Amino acid sequence: MKIYGDIQSGNCYKIKLLTSLLGIEHEWIEVNILKDETHTVEFLKKNPNAKIPVLELDDGRCLSESNAILNYLASGTDLLSCVPFEYAKIQQWQFFEQYSHEPFIAVARYIAKYLGLPDDRKMDYESKQEGGHKALRVMEQQLQKTPYLAGNKLSTADISLYGYTHVADEGGFDLDEYPAIMRWIDLIQSEPKYIGME
Amino acid sequence: MKIYGDIQSGNCYKIKLLTSLLGIEHEWIEVNILKDETHTVEFLKKNPNAKIPVLELDDGRCLSESNAILNYLASGTDLLSCVPFEYAKIQQWQFFEQYSHEPFIAVARYIAKYLGLPDDRKMDYESKQEGGHKALRVMEQQLQKTPYLAGNKLSTADISLYGYTHVADEGGFDLDEYPAIMRWIDLIQSEPKYIGME
Repeated sequence: MKIYGDIQSGNCYKIKLLTSLLGIEHEWIEVNILKDETHTVEFLKKNPNAKIPVLELDDGRCLSESNAILNYLASGTDLLSCVPFEYAKIQQWQFFEQYSHEPFIAVARYIAKYLGLPDDRKMDYESKQEGGHKALRVMEQQLQKTPYLAGNKLSTADISLYGYTHVADEGGFDLDEYPAIMRWIDLIQSEPKYIGME
Repeated sequence: MKIYGDIQSGNCYKIKLLTSLLGIEHEWIEVNILKDETHTVEFLKKNPNAKIPVLELDDGRCLSESNAILNYLASGTDLLSCVPFEYAKIQQWQFFEQYSHEPFIAVARYIAKYLGLPDDRKMDYESKQEGGHKALRVMEQQLQKTPYLAGNKLSTADISLYGYTHVADEGGFDLDEYPAIMRWIDLIQSEPKYIGME
């Protein structure tokens, strides 16, 4: 299989981390969004929504959306329960990630790290802080109750949220305010086959 | 089971539509977001992220995020394939809905319909149009190839996207530009147990 992504993007790194934890062989194809490489005719055939990551199977079928890819790759493994309520709980955290976490934390990080926090984006950057802290508080509350987001076991919900949370400081979010999140980050980093973003 | 929601919200209506299609008995508890009813101490216990819809099972367990609820309720039915790639494809469309569709189409509709398009939100409203049309073009392209979003069968992916798409005109989006979407809307409305938003 091929995976199209940018390793500095949290959404793509999630997939890289999962393939390492599960030992899934693949070809990684680096795509540069700043050079508009997701808008070529060839790429749009793989994902008409012009976003990375994209998984391409050997038979040519493609799958986009980072969390859908994670759940596909983790099917049948310990990282994804097949009990309907447990699987739905994992998805709950993943939809939370895409709607209530990523648009604040990842976008603030993008403006600061990729764009260098230019003056005309400072208001935009500031406006992301409140929503980002709200998302972190929701995570903190759960992680004070259970070691992982969906309960007592590592799941794709954790991989999803870990992607941008562990680099939230690059978007101006001080994680020292969130002791349970810090402990959860350590727990994930202690996985034997863990790999970092670089 | 209890479902907390606002029937005028597309995210909540999705659940109502699915329960009708599948004949799932439940108690519907109307929650008014404009009166801040998702921020009471009682409600925050059900969903710390302060959003509707929320599903509460008879044993007290709660599930939030509309698409996670849909997939939980549809588990084991014809609306949700359990073949890993097919299930992942359904999720792909649902994550697309929450990230690339809802923040434009639902938010434009909210500003126009709920808030009455006040002067200080007009720029915000206008800024949603481009992203909304982009999402509709992605749907149109798929629906020109297959009758439903995930292929030849109705699935929870369609219920998810139908929620806000069929009322997109209330956010200023003219669906006459999208013939395949119009045909798909007719197809869903022809389901024997279909119910509308009111």
